Amino acid sequence: MPKHAYEARVPEVREALIQLQVALQSASFPVLLVIAGDEAAGKGDVVNILNGWLDPRGVETFAFHDPTDEERERPPMWRFWRSQPPRGRMAIYAGGWHTEALGENPRSPPELERFEKMLRHLAHFEGLLVANGALLVKVWLSLSKEAQGARLRELEDDPDTAWRVTPASWKAHRDYDRLDRLAKRMRAATHQTGAPWSMIPAADPRARNLAVADLLLARFQAHRRARAREVAPKKPRAAVPLRPAGLHRLQALPLDQKLSETAYAAKRDKWLGRLNLAVRTAAQQGRSILWVFEGWDADGKGGAIRRLTSAIDARDYRVIPIAKPTDEEKSHHYLWRFWRHVPRAGRVTIYDRSWYGRVLVERLEGFCHEAEWRRGYAELNDFEAQLTEHGIIVLKFWLQLSPAEQLRRFRHREETAYKRHKINAEDWRNRRQWPGYEIAVGDMLALSDRPNAPWHLIPADNKRFARLQILKTSCKQIRAALAG
Amino acid sequence: MPKHAYEARVPEVREALIQLQVALQSASFPVLLVIAGDEAAGKGDVVNILNGWLDPRGVETFAFHDPTDEERERPPMWRFWRSQPPRGRMAIYAGGWHTEALGENPRSPPELERFEKMLRHLAHFEGLLVANGALLVKVWLSLSKEAQGARLRELEDDPDTAWRVTPASWKAHRDYDRLDRLAKRMRAATHQTGAPWSMIPAADPRARNLAVADLLLARFQAHRRARAREVAPKKPRAAVPLRPAGLHRLQALPLDQKLSETAYAAKRDKWLGRLNLAVRTAAQQGRSILWVFEGWDADGKGGAIRRLTSAIDARDYRVIPIAKPTDEEKSHHYLWRFWRHVPRAGRVTIYDRSWYGRVLVERLEGFCHEAEWRRGYAELNDFEAQLTEHGIIVLKFWLQLSPAEQLRRFRHREETAYKRHKINAEDWRNRRQWPGYEIAVGDMLALSDRPNAPWHLIPADNKRFARLQILKTSCKQIRAALAG
Repeated sequence: MPKHAYEARVPEVREALIQLQVALQSASFPVLLVIAGDEAAGKGDVVNILNGWLDPRGVETFAFHDPTDEERERPPMWRFWRSQPPRGRMAIYAGGWHTEALGENPRSPPELERFEKMLRHLAHFEGLLVANGALLVKVWLSLSKEAQGARLRELEDDPDTAWRVTPASWKAHRDYDRLDRLAKRMRAATHQTGAPWSMIPAADPRARNLAVADLLLARFQAHRRARAREVAPKKPRAAVPLRPAGLHRLQALPLDQKLSETAYAAKRDKWLGRLNLAVRTAAQQGRSILWVFEGWDADGKGGAIRRLTSAIDARDYRVIPIAKPTDEEKSHHYLWRFWRHVPRAGRVTIYDRSWYGRVLVERLEGFCHEAEWRRGYAELNDFEAQLTEHGIIVLKFWLQLSPAEQLRRFRHREETAYKRHKINAEDWRNRRQWPGYEIAVGDMLALSDRPNAPWHLIPADNKRFARLQILKTSCKQIRAALAG
Repeated sequence: MPKHAYEARVPEVREALIQLQVALQSASFPVLLVIAGDEAAGKGDVVNILNGWLDPRGVETFAFHDPTDEERERPPMWRFWRSQPPRGRMAIYAGGWHTEALGENPRSPPELERFEKMLRHLAHFEGLLVANGALLVKVWLSLSKEAQGARLRELEDDPDTAWRVTPASWKAHRDYDRLDRLAKRMRAATHQTGAPWSMIPAADPRARNLAVADLLLARFQAHRRARAREVAPKKPRAAVPLRPAGLHRLQALPLDQKLSETAYAAKRDKWLGRLNLAVRTAAQQGRSILWVFEGWDADGKGGAIRRLTSAIDARDYRVIPIAKPTDEEKSHHYLWRFWRHVPRAGRVTIYDRSWYGRVLVERLEGFCHEAEWRRGYAELNDFEAQLTEHGIIVLKFWLQLSPAEQLRRFRHREETAYKRHKINAEDWRNRRQWPGYEIAVGDMLALSDRPNAPWHLIPADNKRFARLQILKTSCKQIRAALAG
């Protein structure tokens, strides 16, 4: 592309990009632009030029080099989650999350297997973002082997850019064919609806720069139009079970358990001691533990968590009560606020309510579309799979209460001065929706009960029994995880 | 304290603590509880017992061990800032931020000098938190040398606790007198109104536990009563200059600068090249750069930032536009949202407007009390001193515009379709308050212009001149900082 033709087009492109940013500010989605490509194709140049054309106050650029120790201690995708822009803003990823996967340079069968696994993670990650409404634009700047060689020599010949050519650049050049096959495989594995790869020839830098900007502009306009047609979710009619087996499992649970105060006290101390040892052993091995508590209002989650934490050094755990999201949380993907609290190696996080709100309250209240909560099961399972693959022990408890016992506790709360703050109109309203919730809970149990992160159903009408069960079950699952 | 007396009191204390937490939820301040003390005085035990008595969902416990690499790359206080609870919640600090200072175990004069400096930082930090309304309760668990020896032997004799006694414990015991003097010095240096140390004898664990809880309860009640008497700030009358010299400096600035397009273009490229080199050199040395841009509406900050960033690799900088705080930001100390963006080693952060809002818009609009913005100057100077002491280069620019040029730009914006979004009623309203703002800016210049972080006044009526001045001045200050 001749210089004059380029310079004739640049002002119009810049103007359009600024307009894009103005429109984006009030949009309901974020923009993620990945600039990846072959060695010496000019990824850094494109990122810099775009940043020069855009208003830098609305963009953030990320490049993922070596992970920090805080990142290494979490599942690999954690660092990509923490680099998500909120809605209304744009992030540019130099090399994307794809460079790391390719940088491993897999050769042996086990390495290639890890590579394939990482690709599945990446594809799933992108699918999640896109399904949540993000605009994801992925660019691959491509350069033939010949053009790459010429470009490297050209960079070397200019004293201003010679430093950018390293022995690794030439090594990549000699290894062009194999790296090209790997990149093709990567692109094929992460090419999907809403997250396609756009190949942009990079031999001519001017044409390349404009092509990237034009692509971004076109995708943005199309995305905005498509999103404008979306309708808000509405409160659904009565819930119908997806998997009646879950509901049966829930309803078959015998709730009338007995446990005397003295029997409880004796056993409790034994199991608290065991739990303390199990948690310390896990910490020594750098294994984190993540507890999830879900259940009905007034099911005794709070008390159960207190008994549990009494066995753990306060410096090692955090309890995260999940209530209304903050505005920073609301402007991100719904999983973002759970990812941000994933513990460091050897630490404990206890979620008092959790990501399962997606398939419980959000399903029943119509806070999200049916398609959204329906695919939620797979999304939540994948989230937990990432945790457990990283060695985190995930313990999930559903505290099951009878409606009669709940009523008794609600009334008791209303009658007891210092408990009155624990009950409000919302609780009574939720109670009237019991049958619907029971169906949603059943589906959740059926669809997210996995060997790596099983659901433990706890009869909770008797608080002592429930607490002891939670202690025992936790201990056993931790010990099994450490042994396995 | 006999066991039966203890057990008779515990239920009442627990009840009171839960009531405290309920009241705290709707309070306008956070609670910070520091549990520090002599070796083997039972800091960990107290922290655990309190966590057992409290509802763990409203508390978070921190213990500061070795900093992570993300922490080491920032000023020492960064890790304490990131561990601040929002208002309505409580944090317990095992050892507080004081243990680290004491752990350095200073002996030589330079070590003792660093120790004293750290103490000043801690005292200032606590003063900031307290002045902002936080309840800070600092407990020192004290044990005589004899009681410490007895306690260590007792711990060693019990197989369950023997692991807690390490060679370092006995070393600390032998060194009791010196460590005691250091701790006394630390407490004296950090004892101030609102942040007193409470000495609690730790020889009797039961009495110790209750004394800590009673102290927390008493301080909370007193704090709540004191805060209830506070009145909201109100919009002040016309501003009166604190330091007329600043206003004179501002008004003496010659704004009618000339610079032709060609002269600008030639010089700009030269200085962009120099800036690029300066920023890269700083990065190689692990020095971060932090730019602060303040000025009038329509002063060309945005354009100046774009020219500046065009010289920097997009992967190395972030632009942080400071607008309305998010709700997470609002629930913390006003400096928290600036601390959170302090760059890692070798990176660049550009603040488009900044912490100076405290002494500008907040002063003029009455968003804070007069006493608050008045002490703001010292607080902001200290914040910047912490940055520069850590080696961060702080570049502050005030873009000065004439009212006539602002009017011209406002009208131009209103008349230009794609610029109309940049102007609104708020801008016109601010413009009418020009004299008041000018007084506040003058005071800011006079009271926060320090050798480590000087204010650069930029005549901004001519955009080209302003941009070039900013490039030149930035270059020179960075080079001077790297040379010095």
